[in-house]
Amino acid sequence: MTFSLLLVIVLGALSIAYGVVTARQVMALDAGSTRMQEISQAVQEGASAYLRRQYTTIGIVGVVLFVLIVLTLGFPVAIGFLIGAVLSGAAGFIGMNVSVRANVRTAQASTQSLAAGLDVAFKSGAITGLLVAGLALLGVAVYFFILVGIAGLAPNSRTVIDALVALGFGASLISIFARLGGGIFTKGADVGGDMVGKVEAGIPEDDPRNPATIADNVGDNVGDCAGMAADLFETYAVTMVATMVLAAIAFPADMLHLGMLYPLAIGAVCVVTSIAGTYFVKLPANNSIMGAMYRGFIVTGVLSLIVLLPLTYLVFGSGTITAGGASFSAFSLFLCGVVGLAVTGLIIVVTEYYTGTDYRPVQAIAESSVTGHGTNVIRGLAVSMESTAVPALIIIAGVLCSYNLAGLYGIAIAVTTMLALAGVVVALDAFGPVTDNAGGIAEMAGLPKEIRVTTDALDAVGNTTKAVTKGYAIGSAGLGALVLFAAYTQDLTYFAANATTFPYFQGVGTLTFSLSSPYVVMGLLFGGALPFLFGGMAMTAVGRAAMSVVEEVRKQFREKPGIMEGRDRPDYGRAVDILTKAAIREMIIPSLLPVLSPLVVYFGVAAIAGKAAGFEALGAMLIGVIVTGFFVAVSMTTGGGAWDNAKKYIEEGHHGGKGSEAHKAAVTGDTVGDPYKDTAGPAVNPMIKITNIVALLLLAMLAHGG
Amino acid sequence: MTFSLLLVIVLGALSIAYGVVTARQVMALDAGSTRMQEISQAVQEGASAYLRRQYTTIGIVGVVLFVLIVLTLGFPVAIGFLIGAVLSGAAGFIGMNVSVRANVRTAQASTQSLAAGLDVAFKSGAITGLLVAGLALLGVAVYFFILVGIAGLAPNSRTVIDALVALGFGASLISIFARLGGGIFTKGADVGGDMVGKVEAGIPEDDPRNPATIADNVGDNVGDCAGMAADLFETYAVTMVATMVLAAIAFPADMLHLGMLYPLAIGAVCVVTSIAGTYFVKLPANNSIMGAMYRGFIVTGVLSLIVLLPLTYLVFGSGTITAGGASFSAFSLFLCGVVGLAVTGLIIVVTEYYTGTDYRPVQAIAESSVTGHGTNVIRGLAVSMESTAVPALIIIAGVLCSYNLAGLYGIAIAVTTMLALAGVVVALDAFGPVTDNAGGIAEMAGLPKEIRVTTDALDAVGNTTKAVTKGYAIGSAGLGALVLFAAYTQDLTYFAANATTFPYFQGVGTLTFSLSSPYVVMGLLFGGALPFLFGGMAMTAVGRAAMSVVEEVRKQFREKPGIMEGRDRPDYGRAVDILTKAAIREMIIPSLLPVLSPLVVYFGVAAIAGKAAGFEALGAMLIGVIVTGFFVAVSMTTGGGAWDNAKKYIEEGHHGGKGSEAHKAAVTGDTVGDPYKDTAGPAVNPMIKITNIVALLLLAMLAHGG
Repeated sequence: MTFSLLLVIVLGALSIAYGVVTARQVMALDAGSTRMQEISQAVQEGASAYLRRQYTTIGIVGVVLFVLIVLTLGFPVAIGFLIGAVLSGAAGFIGMNVSVRANVRTAQASTQSLAAGLDVAFKSGAITGLLVAGLALLGVAVYFFILVGIAGLAPNSRTVIDALVALGFGASLISIFARLGGGIFTKGADVGGDMVGKVEAGIPEDDPRNPATIADNVGDNVGDCAGMAADLFETYAVTMVATMVLAAIAFPADMLHLGMLYPLAIGAVCVVTSIAGTYFVKLPANNSIMGAMYRGFIVTGVLSLIVLLPLTYLVFGSGTITAGGASFSAFSLFLCGVVGLAVTGLIIVVTEYYTGTDYRPVQAIAESSVTGHGTNVIRGLAVSMESTAVPALIIIAGVLCSYNLAGLYGIAIAVTTMLALAGVVVALDAFGPVTDNAGGIAEMAGLPKEIRVTTDALDAVGNTTKAVTKGYAIGSAGLGALVLFAAYTQDLTYFAANATTFPYFQGVGTLTFSLSSPYVVMGLLFGGALPFLFGGMAMTAVGRAAMSVVEEVRKQFREKPGIMEGRDRPDYGRAVDILTKAAIREMIIPSLLPVLSPLVVYFGVAAIAGKAAGFEALGAMLIGVIVTGFFVAVSMTTGGGAWDNAKKYIEEGHHGGKGSEAHKAAVTGDTVGDPYKDTAGPAVNPMIKITNIVALLLLAMLAHGG
Repeated sequence: MTFSLLLVIVLGALSIAYGVVTARQVMALDAGSTRMQEISQAVQEGASAYLRRQYTTIGIVGVVLFVLIVLTLGFPVAIGFLIGAVLSGAAGFIGMNVSVRANVRTAQASTQSLAAGLDVAFKSGAITGLLVAGLALLGVAVYFFILVGIAGLAPNSRTVIDALVALGFGASLISIFARLGGGIFTKGADVGGDMVGKVEAGIPEDDPRNPATIADNVGDNVGDCAGMAADLFETYAVTMVATMVLAAIAFPADMLHLGMLYPLAIGAVCVVTSIAGTYFVKLPANNSIMGAMYRGFIVTGVLSLIVLLPLTYLVFGSGTITAGGASFSAFSLFLCGVVGLAVTGLIIVVTEYYTGTDYRPVQAIAESSVTGHGTNVIRGLAVSMESTAVPALIIIAGVLCSYNLAGLYGIAIAVTTMLALAGVVVALDAFGPVTDNAGGIAEMAGLPKEIRVTTDALDAVGNTTKAVTKGYAIGSAGLGALVLFAAYTQDLTYFAANATTFPYFQGVGTLTFSLSSPYVVMGLLFGGALPFLFGGMAMTAVGRAAMSVVEEVRKQFREKPGIMEGRDRPDYGRAVDILTKAAIREMIIPSLLPVLSPLVVYFGVAAIAGKAAGFEALGAMLIGVIVTGFFVAVSMTTGGGAWDNAKKYIEEGHHGGKGSEAHKAAVTGDTVGDPYKDTAGPAVNPMIKITNIVALLLLAMLAHGG
């Protein structure tokens, strides 16, 4: 096992090597004119200042929790928490730093050709993507190696399991703050800037006269890039951890290490196939940017599939495996991996259908814009709600297939395989904010119109890939959360069955989580309420932040009338500052909601109806969060993407094109879609998992303390 | 038992007597000028034509199902279905007929005084309200009396239980069509008419030059009045039925008849207290219309509470009652009733907080309108999502209290008591469309401005009471559905335990509905998807209907330029006709979704994983529908009400008042809120229950056929 783990670590480290090499390549490129570098510098400063403040704030919460974990679960477990938190933060920080430097170089490369622009933008996305996947894999694998290979702990010892869970908790905690804080910042800037700039003052997006324009570009980096990176890091790490915990409980002693090694091995080989895939992203003869993207993705998928089969036999051999009451072969596990890849592919196709300009839903929203703002929003909400049904069916089919192939572990392996592609998926996503920024810089630096056309073409693809990866993220988060829930029930069963060792669990007995119990139904309802409340709070926060930006911009226009004539320079820093304060202030309470809710439910119900009812209600709450969270998140991210592209579709010249009444209505829809798709929707992902992982941690604390 | 049942029927019949007497009083009033009567006549014709077509269409579905039930469950059960369907249709039909005649009389009475206008409008609402509650009670009680008292069947015989369930199914089926069809009609007219009239042509609401104005008034009657009446009829009947079925299964043989009689007795005495309450609705000295309304409601509540205590002892005596594993006293059951009333009161308070112009949420939406359409919608969506949390906590508290007092039967009694007040609650709601119409008639008939001020004051209160009763309806529907789910599990346990008598259930064994089973989790996800899909389809339907109205109105303005100058008369009939066709066409598929889904889930899963898994997945699906359905419905109805009143708040003169930019943004929010609160949101109510009742019926068919 030690050797295999080291191999995993070496392969994982390749992602770091790829990141360093590619980052050097990108940095060596021409950073454009002084004006462009000035703008990029301003964006960079704003983004760094924001992240510094965000991390300081999260740091305070983190230190409190670290001390709490040291006191309750001991030092090794707390170190796990620290690793998860620091690496999650690092993923976001690196993503932001790459992106703020790549934006200006993408703008400059776009002056040469579309292919050159695509190359820089995609490479910078790939650096972030592979570092996210690589760091998550390495974090889990290295700490597991230290605990098991060096400190000599048993892989299924409570310390190891608790440390892994704590690592996941650390990652989730940072991720929810980063997603939410970054999301509030970016959409506050975007909505506020658009409303006062595009709608009131009638100046184009990214016009240097708009005092919110630098803030808008800062937002792309701290929200869409750093926030997304932290989110995917978390989903990856938590899924790995959940699969390993499940394996530790389910597998018999002699197979245990294999069951725990396998997810890490999948992650490791997929780092290699992801790196290989990135080299296939090249603009084809027909100039289809989307085609280039998908080619890289498909190559990674096919290569992973090819490698997965021998890998599985290498790990498990050809005998029958028995784990958690299910018997299966290595081939069944391979098929679970195939299920994971199939789910990924199908979700991408469905998301593209609902958010692409070539299909009915987006065109229907565009059509509804002709009759006004109201019908645009109504139709957009309709699409947003309807778009949840097919992804739900895909997840249902995926779970049923993988469960029938290899039990709960089969589901876990399907999700692990799905997430093993995170490197290349994040690459597609991180590409978006870079091109968005590049366009902004081109506009502000007054580069020729053709450059803006090139960056706009890249940006449009970025919108679709962003929507697609969000579908992927929430799909995998939903499945990952189900694995976490399985870990919760298995863990609980284990503690209850060994109540002599874990005295707190005496008298808990066998738990059924039966829907006939009112505590279970109430837990479901309570859990179901959380994503709605959380989503509502996130929307409120963006609305408030945007209003403060609108007021600031109006004030600047009023105080310095020269801004609109180009004589006065707007104070960009003030908008950045206002948003930084607003985002940090607004992210705290919603982020703590999923951390505290499991405690409230468990201790509340346990006080009324005993421990057993408390654990059942808590378990039901977790499922409640997963079920409504999935629908809320999918409807928000897909709906937001559809609104965005309906606007783009009109701008392409349909229904009167830019400046028409239909376009104005479509801008309203896009504005509503912004916090839907970039703040509330994606933040529900870490929110779902954080409730589940806090529940696991609570079990560990009760077992340890009782 | 026979005597007690007859007493229930006599008390229930009092509601009919009240209806007839009060209807005569209202009809005897002055119907105003010829012009007013003409307008009222046009509305009446449109509404009758629509309902005729709607019922013909539903009739076809109904006949098919009737035959199917005769063939599978026999004639007495099919008669139950017929009674439920016909009475549900009758409730809607009567509601509409009262309302279309009371509107003109309210307008005329408003020429005298506010008190006179209030009196007519409220009385007409009370007729509908008491007939809804009375017919539902009588339908269940009379058929139960025929089966048990006359035909001599045992109260817990399968025929009686199946007949009751079928009665509930008939009511639900009509109700979902009526809610959805009426909702699409009314909001298609409202949204379409407003967008082209208010926004494009700049003419006020209800202006006779708007060709959609009669359709708008027809919509109030077929949607807000007939649809709502059918919905509440259904909730009432289904809750009664579910409570009786639960009692039939849970109570020991010697107490059985008491357990089944008790809910009917509660309903009967509350008919009397509701009638008493209506006489307390009188305009107080301070002219507070809302105060007058609440006085009537509070009197009914307090009287019911006073009567409930002796009634409960009269039925159950002072001994200990044992049912379904729980032991409790008559006093505990009385306390469950108190819980039901408390839940009603709290939900009303919370809904008023979220939708009233005096509180933060509505004012925040109004404030957000200042910065534009986008921020208005964002803030409205935020309020809509946040508003679900507290009602969920109220329901949770209500269930936990009543369960701890008297087990599952306790929950059922809490809901029954809640619904026993339906008569007076519907009165408050049906008052709304009457005053809305009265205002329209005053406007179109060119009555002096003061009259419109009076009807507007009444209408504003109508908006609040409508939101409040929707909160009540969805709260009680959620609780009622939980009782249905309990009936499903109890029924299933009974069949499985008696598999020799019911051979289909051989080998099903003990079902736990454990959340650890993937079939249960998948069932939850599948069920969770339904309200989203259904809501999305309803929103799409309204959007499409509104667009066709906009196009029709634009066409009329184009073809007859004289309309705007008042020289040409618009063709009101064409708009009514277009909407009728659209509403009927669009209601079919979404309405069949909840009818067919239980069958698909059960037979689908049973084919893959056996009957036991099928029943578990189906049960989980029911809970999934309840959980997400509750949140979707609450967020839509409350959010819509908040948007509506934010517009009203601005019209009162805040943020620039009528005609300001903020007002335009608020109109957009109101437009979006319209299908939210009057189509999709309320239609989720019957949708939740129909899935549950179809599942119960499926069990009956399998037991009968197997």
